[in-house]
Amino acid sequence: PVPVTVRCRWGAAAAAHPVAQRLLAIRDAKRSNLCVAADLCDAADIMRLCEQIGPLICVLKVHADTVDNWTAETASALRAAADRHNFLLFEDRKFADIGHTVVCQASGGVHRIVAWADLINAHGIPGRGVVDGLRQACQASGRAVGLLLVAQMSSKGNLIDSAYTERCLAMAREARDLCIGFIAQERLDDTGELLVMTPGVQLAAGGDALGQQYNTPADVIGCRGADFIIVGRGIYGATDPCQAARAYQAAGWAALTDASSRAR
Amino acid sequence: PVPVTVRCRWGAAAAAHPVAQRLLAIRDAKRSNLCVAADLCDAADIMRLCEQIGPLICVLKVHADTVDNWTAETASALRAAADRHNFLLFEDRKFADIGHTVVCQASGGVHRIVAWADLINAHGIPGRGVVDGLRQACQASGRAVGLLLVAQMSSKGNLIDSAYTERCLAMAREARDLCIGFIAQERLDDTGELLVMTPGVQLAAGGDALGQQYNTPADVIGCRGADFIIVGRGIYGATDPCQAARAYQAAGWAALTDASSRAR
Repeated sequence: PVPVTVRCRWGAAAAAHPVAQRLLAIRDAKRSNLCVAADLCDAADIMRLCEQIGPLICVLKVHADTVDNWTAETASALRAAADRHNFLLFEDRKFADIGHTVVCQASGGVHRIVAWADLINAHGIPGRGVVDGLRQACQASGRAVGLLLVAQMSSKGNLIDSAYTERCLAMAREARDLCIGFIAQERLDDTGELLVMTPGVQLAAGGDALGQQYNTPADVIGCRGADFIIVGRGIYGATDPCQAARAYQAAGWAALTDASSRAR
Repeated sequence: PVPVTVRCRWGAAAAAHPVAQRLLAIRDAKRSNLCVAADLCDAADIMRLCEQIGPLICVLKVHADTVDNWTAETASALRAAADRHNFLLFEDRKFADIGHTVVCQASGGVHRIVAWADLINAHGIPGRGVVDGLRQACQASGRAVGLLLVAQMSSKGNLIDSAYTERCLAMAREARDLCIGFIAQERLDDTGELLVMTPGVQLAAGGDALGQQYNTPADVIGCRGADFIIVGRGIYGATDPCQAARAYQAAGWAALTDASSRAR
């Protein structure tokens, strides 16, 4: 990990990609580095959550393929909510196939991901063909879409080692036209140009029965140098999601501004 | 790789899992170790291909999420074709998320994968949580579903090294109630109990523009010890898919029987 004190945290340099520019502008305008994972199976529940927490977040992350009643209208409604509340849509598909296949997975099927998502992600495991395939799909869509490579995972006993992470870093550096950063557990790039979003965040550390492991916002932002926290069950599973989102927004923003003031 | 001459190729021991039993019974009844990858975007085209090649194959592999007009009726029609022509359905989703997420991805969404697929696959990368999550989804479905772990890939510059493959092998051995084998480029398990299906197969070696690399049936079955060949563009992209499937069926079967006779 790069020491917090030498980090460039305010991302001017990161803004080369239009989606990174928008992400940082939204973050600063809303004082929120909070991405909420809306892991819900019903489209109406996701839309309700959007309305509750939309003003508080910079990114809404979804798994379109877990939504039982997903239709083209779901994508339109999400897009409208994102534009109204000023947040980005992140489809957490974790593309992980050869280039020829991910072209179709990203652009086609029932979900037509690159027709509505601002952010997508991929495992680096297939090699650079996965990035080339996603580039082809994004270019054909005519929309600005940013890619995050999954360079580290939060789950227990995951098979990613430091050599794998290094290779993801190299892949990202070679694809700056598409890749704006990483899903990771710590800062990977000391230039500050490649952003880091960290999943597995809760206000109390812990885990679930299927191997997920949680860290706190202060830990992932302050100690490990992430830019954005991704919070799922801590918000959508709360009795009052709006109140929970406020708490995470405040904790994430405090950790970021604190780390940034230390870095000056 | 395990030398061909010491391999147990006829899989009596592999048949502990009901899906492995059915797979080997179909293989022997149809004299076919051919899996066809139906990478087509239109449901009607997939159904047409099913009718053309159904009698020649033991497995049809699909990417449900690349089919633009997929509905519940597509799953029913595929299921009916598989039962009529006696082949298994393999959804090549390459699950690659934490356990909590893959439960929903496998059982829910528009595709409801474990409600119709006989075979599914996953990357080992998230650790054993991905297997535990898929087990939960499969058990809840009430159907017999077999899992193949992606232990090696065929694409150029992929990030899998031998340590990663070994960890997938260990994961599979610990999950014999669900995992019947691997997507890999060579035999990984010298007992013959864990089956190997190899993608990236064409009658002429070569590659595509997005990093896919091809090997021949004789090479992957005869030299590397795979059990099943997965052929995509070589068949669905042929002028006469039925004729092409016959050629691959013959080549795959000849390679398997030849390797087996050498092994006795």
